Amino acid sequence: MMRFAVRMDVDLPRDLDPAVVQDTLAREKAYSQQLQRNGEWVHIWRIVGAYSNLSVFEVESNDRLHEILWNLPLFPYMTIEVTPLAVHPSDIHPPQ
Amino acid sequence: MMRFAVRMDVDLPRDLDPAVVQDTLAREKAYSQQLQRNGEWVHIWRIVGAYSNLSVFEVESNDRLHEILWNLPLFPYMTIEVTPLAVHPSDIHPPQ
Amino acid sequence: MMRFAVRMDVDLPRDLDPAVVQDTLAREKAYSQQLQRNGEWVHIWRIVGAYSNLSVFEVESNDRLHEILWNLPLFPYMTIEVTPLAVHPSDIHPPQ
Amino acid sequence: MMRFAVRMDVDLPRDLDPAVVQDTLAREKAYSQQLQRNGEWVHIWRIVGAYSNLSVFEVESNDRLHEILWNLPLFPYMTIEVTPLAVHPSDIHPPQ
Amino acid sequence: MMRFAVRMDVDLPRDLDPAVVQDTLAREKAYSQQLQRNGEWVHIWRIVGAYSNLSVFEVESNDRLHEILWNLPLFPYMTIEVTPLAVHPSDIHPPQ
Amino acid sequence: MMRFAVRMDVDLPRDLDPAVVQDTLAREKAYSQQLQRNGEWVHIWRIVGAYSNLSVFEVESNDRLHEILWNLPLFPYMTIEVTPLAVHPSDIHPPQ
Amino acid sequence: MMRFAVRMDVDLPRDLDPAVVQDTLAREKAYSQQLQRNGEWVHIWRIVGAYSNLSVFEVESNDRLHEILWNLPLFPYMTIEVTPLAVHPSDIHPPQ
Amino acid sequence: MMRFAVRMDVDLPRDLDPAVVQDTLAREKAYSQQLQRNGEWVHIWRIVGAYSNLSVFEVESNDRLHEILWNLPLFPYMTIEVTPLAVHPSDIHPPQ
Amino acid sequence: MMRFAVRMDVDLPRDLDPAVVQDTLAREKAYSQQLQRNGEWVHIWRIVGAYSNLSVFEVESNDRLHEILWNLPLFPYMTIEVTPLAVHPSDIHPPQ
Amino acid sequence: MMRFAVRMDVDLPRDLDPAVVQDTLAREKAYSQQLQRNGEWVHIWRIVGAYSNLSVFEVESNDRLHEILWNLPLFPYMTIEVTPLAVHPSDIHPPQ
Repeated sequence: MMRFAVRMDVDLPRDLDPAVVQDTLAREKAYSQQLQRNGEWVHIWRIVGAYSNLSVFEVESNDRLHEILWNLPLFPYMTIEVTPLAVHPSDIHPPQ
Repeated sequence: MMRFAVRMDVDLPRDLDPAVVQDTLAREKAYSQQLQRNGEWVHIWRIVGAYSNLSVFEVESNDRLHEILWNLPLFPYMTIEVTPLAVHPSDIHPPQ
Repeated sequence: MMRFAVRMDVDLPRDLDPAVVQDTLAREKAYSQQLQRNGEWVHIWRIVGAYSNLSVFEVESNDRLHEILWNLPLFPYMTIEVTPLAVHPSDIHPPQ
Repeated sequence: MMRFAVRMDVDLPRDLDPAVVQDTLAREKAYSQQLQRNGEWVHIWRIVGAYSNLSVFEVESNDRLHEILWNLPLFPYMTIEVTPLAVHPSDIHPPQ
Repeated sequence: MMRFAVRMDVDLPRDLDPAVVQDTLAREKAYSQQLQRNGEWVHIWRIVGAYSNLSVFEVESNDRLHEILWNLPLFPYMTIEVTPLAVHPSDIHPPQ
Repeated sequence: MMRFAVRMDVDLPRDLDPAVVQDTLAREKAYSQQLQRNGEWVHIWRIVGAYSNLSVFEVESNDRLHEILWNLPLFPYMTIEVTPLAVHPSDIHPPQ
Repeated sequence: MMRFAVRMDVDLPRDLDPAVVQDTLAREKAYSQQLQRNGEWVHIWRIVGAYSNLSVFEVESNDRLHEILWNLPLFPYMTIEVTPLAVHPSDIHPPQ
Repeated sequence: MMRFAVRMDVDLPRDLDPAVVQDTLAREKAYSQQLQRNGEWVHIWRIVGAYSNLSVFEVESNDRLHEILWNLPLFPYMTIEVTPLAVHPSDIHPPQ
Repeated sequence: MMRFAVRMDVDLPRDLDPAVVQDTLAREKAYSQQLQRNGEWVHIWRIVGAYSNLSVFEVESNDRLHEILWNLPLFPYMTIEVTPLAVHPSDIHPPQ
Repeated sequence: MMRFAVRMDVDLPRDLDPAVVQDTLAREKAYSQQLQRNGEWVHIWRIVGAYSNLSVFEVESNDRLHEILWNLPLFPYMTIEVTPLAVHPSDIHPPQ
């Protein structure tokens, strides 16, 4: 399993139908929480002052990470930055 | 307690005395691990392909975070970027 | 209590209903002044030549700062940059 | 009187004589505190994780601000960014 | 009196009513020429190949400069960059 | 197996001992060719006009990619940019 | 024959007719696969987390590469970055 | 006579009337070719993979260059970058 | 005659012989003042908080401007940015 | 034959032996002029105010262009930017 830091910046177009916005946000939340529960979306933090999050994913491959991100309900309205992570030699609880 | 993402990029000058380098790296590792044990340095990951880490700190104040970073043995050789984090509304295990 | 410098750049879409603009600006002003009165929005300056301000906030946590910024009536039209501040050792009147 | 936000980033060369460093830092501190006392250096904050400060100056002219900055003992080792400020219409305690 | 270099980049939306454009441009020109006549807008040059100008203002304060720029008829369509200027020690005709 | 695009920009310090340079370059070449032979370093191209290469790696994990890059003999003199790749749906010969 | 690395970032306008989008994507895929079959579009990878690809082309001239890119059905919605490549002296299987 | 390198990047709005586009492109081409014939537009190259050109102009003054560029039929849809050129001392055929 | 805005940022190496620095600065000042007297160096302003100036030159050609800048005694220690200027149609005192 | 625009920015280290500098510059000039004579280095212009040139090369391949640039006597002290060019459809004298 591998870890990736992912920053997502959301930019919702103002002219989206409010019902579409509500539905999209609800699906985004459910999607994120399902992936948190299955252990692939390990951390999610709000970035202070921004419609953005910093997340950490733990996945089996690049292809799986892309599949997760591409299917985010908010994907069309996001800018996404991916940073591959490795174990740090000073980590006292390195992942197995 | 508050969380901050911190990226540290290390640029060791080539003309440092090798003994100084060794000693500094050993002190850096011990310092990091002590803070990991006391719960303030929550995560540390290596950034793939770089002499850099992405870390998450959990501290009681900005002043405490600055104190921690300023006293890093490698501080004089680092560029540091700090991002304040908040609880994300989709987080299924939000910190208390 | 902690201090943060916050720069806000406003970009109002031209096609907003003028009545909505007026109402939003009035609410923004009232919201800012209420936070100034309660002591959390410590300074606000206009940046010369720009529809922007530089502000200083004094809040108890990152989460509180995010709550304040997220609820700005102009938030959907702003780009916001947050800089955590600490006490400077040369400050002759450091905050308690 | 006019206000300016000034960010100063310090980059001390590693090969400076330690006695020179100590003397320069002591003179920098005294110089800053004298200007704080005379009312021209209104605020000084440390930027978390950096050898930097964010300051606010209140001076009678651009020429006076340049004179102050040019004579900083650390000036040769600093990158300085100056932002002119004006009164913000929402400020509940605008300067006279 | 103080001098500021100001660069203004104009980006007129294509869907502005042509009559509004004509009127705005006429008011912008009259506004600029009035300030040139009263001595506050000291220089104005076109930047070659761009819908931009580089100007120098001579004003009594930051607040006055902001007032001038904020009231430019083209202000909503401009990006503005302000650089505070001081007397240069090599200037053979320094301003009084 | 996963693919990563990696750009490496080399900046050799001028004051390196020429014998050290020769030895480092020889070890770099041998190291690269060994990894090409074992199938992990899949492509290497020179970027025209630069002391740089664009490479593609095929590895089993982020940790393995970091290990490979960290041990490059030229690592201390390189800036490295890593881009994780996935299978493209239009690829007529997708990797198995 | 010469190689070029080409990064393409797609930004589809939201208000495109869905039938037009479908048709354009189908033509883009067919166009890409035809060029892959004729040997000019040598590699195509998805960039993880982005509506982007990194490709390698092998063409007889700059003019041919421009012709290929200019005629991409998605060209009007793409930002394209071209990097000319040369044979790397460490390549164990250099192209003939 | 003086030379300037000029890079022009075209960004045609999608909602332009196709007849207007055709007419504008035809006028742009005629305008460019007339200036090539009179000797002021000395070189024009397409930048590979972009709706852009790199050109060299030979004109008698900055004002003349600005007049030429300002009157390009595509000017409202272009970003233009101007670089003044001088004779290079290694040029074996320097302009008279 | 043509006008150019020129920004010069000075970065004096710390290890220059102080006598060389003094001599270079004296020659720079004399050189600048001679060009101011002959009418080619029309304006020179200090940029507040920086070892930089913003200048305006009025010269007969690009070649003459390059000759002036190349021969600045501080040229080897400067970063120079040149912006060609034209007459602005709103200028009430356009140059002849 | 293909054309490339190449910008070269020279940054000579101050501590180079003056005799080495003289020799390198003489070899650079001879090398450039030989390539101008053989028709591969088609244009060379000085960029006003900079130790830089903008050049156009006409070569048979990317590999040949890289060989030319890599062997520039000043190569170790240059930053080089390469832009592939194609024939522009408005060019009245397109290359054969």
